[in-house]
Amino acid sequence: MALYKELAQRLRDHIQHDFYKQGDKLPSVRQLAQEHSVSISTVQEAYRQLEQDRLVEAKPKSGYFVCRTEGGSLPSISRPPQRPLEVSQWEEVLNMLMIRASQKGVQLQHAMPDMRAPTLKPLLKTLSDLSKHKPELGLGYSDIRGSEALRTQLCRLAVASGCQLHPDDLVITSGCQEAISVCLRAVTSPGDIVAIESPSFYGSMQAIKAANLKAMEIPTHPETGMSIEALELALDQWPIKTIFVTPTCNNPMGYTMPDEKKEQLYKLAQAYDITIIEDDIYGDISYQFPRPRSIKSFDTDGRVLLCSSFSKSIAPGIRVGWIAPGRYRDRVTHIKYVSSSMCPVFPQLAIEKFIRLGGYNKHIRQMRHQYEPQRDHLLKAIKDYFPSNTRVSFPQGSFILWVELDNDIDTMKLIESCRKVGVGFAPGPLFSATGKYRNCFRLNFSEQNTHRREEAIKLLAKEIKAFSKAE
Amino acid sequence: MALYKELAQRLRDHIQHDFYKQGDKLPSVRQLAQEHSVSISTVQEAYRQLEQDRLVEAKPKSGYFVCRTEGGSLPSISRPPQRPLEVSQWEEVLNMLMIRASQKGVQLQHAMPDMRAPTLKPLLKTLSDLSKHKPELGLGYSDIRGSEALRTQLCRLAVASGCQLHPDDLVITSGCQEAISVCLRAVTSPGDIVAIESPSFYGSMQAIKAANLKAMEIPTHPETGMSIEALELALDQWPIKTIFVTPTCNNPMGYTMPDEKKEQLYKLAQAYDITIIEDDIYGDISYQFPRPRSIKSFDTDGRVLLCSSFSKSIAPGIRVGWIAPGRYRDRVTHIKYVSSSMCPVFPQLAIEKFIRLGGYNKHIRQMRHQYEPQRDHLLKAIKDYFPSNTRVSFPQGSFILWVELDNDIDTMKLIESCRKVGVGFAPGPLFSATGKYRNCFRLNFSEQNTHRREEAIKLLAKEIKAFSKAE
Ligand SMILES: Cc1ncc(COP(=O)(O)O)c(C=O)c1O
Ligand SMILES: Cc1ncc(COP(=O)(O)O)c(C=O)c1O
Repeated sequence: MALYKELAQRLRDHIQHDFYKQGDKLPSVRQLAQEHSVSISTVQEAYRQLEQDRLVEAKPKSGYFVCRTEGGSLPSISRPPQRPLEVSQWEEVLNMLMIRASQKGVQLQHAMPDMRAPTLKPLLKTLSDLSKHKPELGLGYSDIRGSEALRTQLCRLAVASGCQLHPDDLVITSGCQEAISVCLRAVTSPGDIVAIESPSFYGSMQAIKAANLKAMEIPTHPETGMSIEALELALDQWPIKTIFVTPTCNNPMGYTMPDEKKEQLYKLAQAYDITIIEDDIYGDISYQFPRPRSIKSFDTDGRVLLCSSFSKSIAPGIRVGWIAPGRYRDRVTHIKYVSSSMCPVFPQLAIEKFIRLGGYNKHIRQMRHQYEPQRDHLLKAIKDYFPSNTRVSFPQGSFILWVELDNDIDTMKLIESCRKVGVGFAPGPLFSATGKYRNCFRLNFSEQNTHRREEAIKLLAKEIKAFSKAE
Repeated sequence: MALYKELAQRLRDHIQHDFYKQGDKLPSVRQLAQEHSVSISTVQEAYRQLEQDRLVEAKPKSGYFVCRTEGGSLPSISRPPQRPLEVSQWEEVLNMLMIRASQKGVQLQHAMPDMRAPTLKPLLKTLSDLSKHKPELGLGYSDIRGSEALRTQLCRLAVASGCQLHPDDLVITSGCQEAISVCLRAVTSPGDIVAIESPSFYGSMQAIKAANLKAMEIPTHPETGMSIEALELALDQWPIKTIFVTPTCNNPMGYTMPDEKKEQLYKLAQAYDITIIEDDIYGDISYQFPRPRSIKSFDTDGRVLLCSSFSKSIAPGIRVGWIAPGRYRDRVTHIKYVSSSMCPVFPQLAIEKFIRLGGYNKHIRQMRHQYEPQRDHLLKAIKDYFPSNTRVSFPQGSFILWVELDNDIDTMKLIESCRKVGVGFAPGPLFSATGKYRNCFRLNFSEQNTHRREEAIKLLAKEIKAFSKAE
């Protein structure tokens, strides 16, 4: 056996015998090399293999750690129906959207970031200064592609995800929802089929429905995203027009598709000569630094339309999103104009300054550092209180995670009793085109009050157990 | 001859012999009754007849006036192609939209209100106070139908146009453009035909194009709007799915469809069991007080979808619009959510307070009083400087008017030379689905600086004359 394989096996044994526990830091490369009298590159190779096996993970500047998801606790890979279908579930989405955030209790259904962060202060100050001192700037019609100054700053930010963009390559939108809607309409015709991850964000599925398109749900791995093999099969069988993916800190599952797989996906789109709509809304709050590459960064022929917004990295109420539409710029500009004309100017100018003066990067660094331990705290609470057969996703960024309960549990029913005790979650069927994932739900962990959340988890656990018995 | 007819004839003679000139105040009802020894009701009947003939107009609380459009100077009734067609002209619209308002010279192409009015101050103050003192209010996701408090105030305003609405009957949008787009998508399927006025606002025509619909342009009278007879013919011949109209202070022509005709239009939609999308964006800045009724006010079965915004009455940059979707509320809510999710909260709250404390009504009263004499000033300038065969619309509200030049003049070419001398206008073809109205353009008269505008008109007149000679 090669030296590195031997070393990898030894480490694997240690992990499996709980010598190193989930989340523990592993010895440094240098340390192991000395201990085992092997070269640095042998240790690196061993760690690389364990990373591939998803037993360990590397954290930049901190070293290697035992993955917290080790064992069978991840949700299963999804098995959606193998054909294009109409999207349903609008009633359910509407019901959830109508529950006000102001409702009492602990509402964990929304995908809202923590908006009390002091690092947002400079942004809010600029906003108020603008409307006070330069009201006239916000009153007129302005560039339908959005503020050029903001587009310039967005190009600067895009470098972190591996993209070289020009301000003319961008169109500002009213949030990522408009970006998605516009892109779908720009690259499809009514009746076309869109390949999507399963589970998927309900907003994009409802946009598919409203554009008279069909959704082809593709089996999706809870750690690496859409299955490339399953996608290729689907592309062979159906005239799929575009691939819609959220590959970086996916909503609801939290995975980040590895770079190689992102590139494979892009190559596949090239081979079938179709487009990719990439939703990167959570990309900037990946826990990894520098943040993961986008699929857009592999795009050499303009077939990737990247959609994003500041709704998760700053606040959804600010309603500033954007599209990097590649070669579909003209059509995207047309549909954006038709969709809602130009966007309000003040939020754009305020964000522009926030980025320019470094406030944005400082803020997302802060958020990364806040959300990651909050994820771990929530994972622990779930492990402590939920039934032992519960499976949980292991988000690589963002502030939401996905829980898979026993097959018998219907979260659409569970939610009724939970509402009574004052705990909200986003039930699984919202994330399927056809009402699947009834035994799943999504939880938010953005708020700093981990104690409050733990109490909510206890209540939830009690309801789940009561529900299991009642069935 | 009946007494009232005799009296009407006498007044008609006086007007035609320039005894009373365009715009002159006519004797009061009481005065005429005394002079001619007839009853009050006879005089009223006579005036009613002259009003029908469009020789005189009543101004509430001020009496009767000679119509300023008396004579042959109105644009001709339009004669668009008699079949449904694809909308073109996007390139031309884009070119115009890309000309920044900041460009030097006098840019009369935009439909922007005067935003320097001191009556807007309280609104701007609230906006700045909100982002200063209650930033958290503007950050989260909120009701996708928009602020309930604002919807309540909108119901109060709607009473002036004859509508009884409930806050639940309204959906807030990102401006009127989104309202139009959403309504079109809510009541049609791809391939459907939409009847529209001709000329028509380019934004709604481009929305028709983007929704994969066809436009059926209906002959339109420059004083009373869409021809009911022509519409009925079209309805007989084609499977028209919805009627899109801007019947009150139309863009670009400025006419207001009389109440009887509004009702006829509604009855026709009932007879053919189709919907009406009514764009009321200029309704509140009609010069008439109380403002004219909307078609929506005749709606007994929920088939009228009213679209509007504060873009013309306050400022377009504020991006607050709304839909009163009648029985299509659920579909409209769905498509609005998909289109751009919820709208920013601060502008909604600021406008809510502006209306509630009376600032809005004060502001539009002010604007009415400002725009009407500015219209007359512009009409006079056109009469003084433009070729004598120029025809001009006579807006009943708003701050835009429509000019029809000699048939030989191509405004798409004229605009090039005008750009050089620093005068902008919106060329006619933008307002046709198929590039008609090449000899027409639209001018804005919202700014208070009438002198500056008069100078621009002189320059324009010079270019027009140079152009005529060159041809
Ligand atoms: C994956 C994803 N895309 C898009 C959106 C919509 O974002 P926005 O609020 O910017 O419209 C969301 C919001 O929840 C989301 O989670
Ligand atoms: C008739 C008409 N409808 C709709 C609009 C679009 O309005 P908003 O700026 O509110 O989207 C305009 C703007 O020019 C208009 O003139």
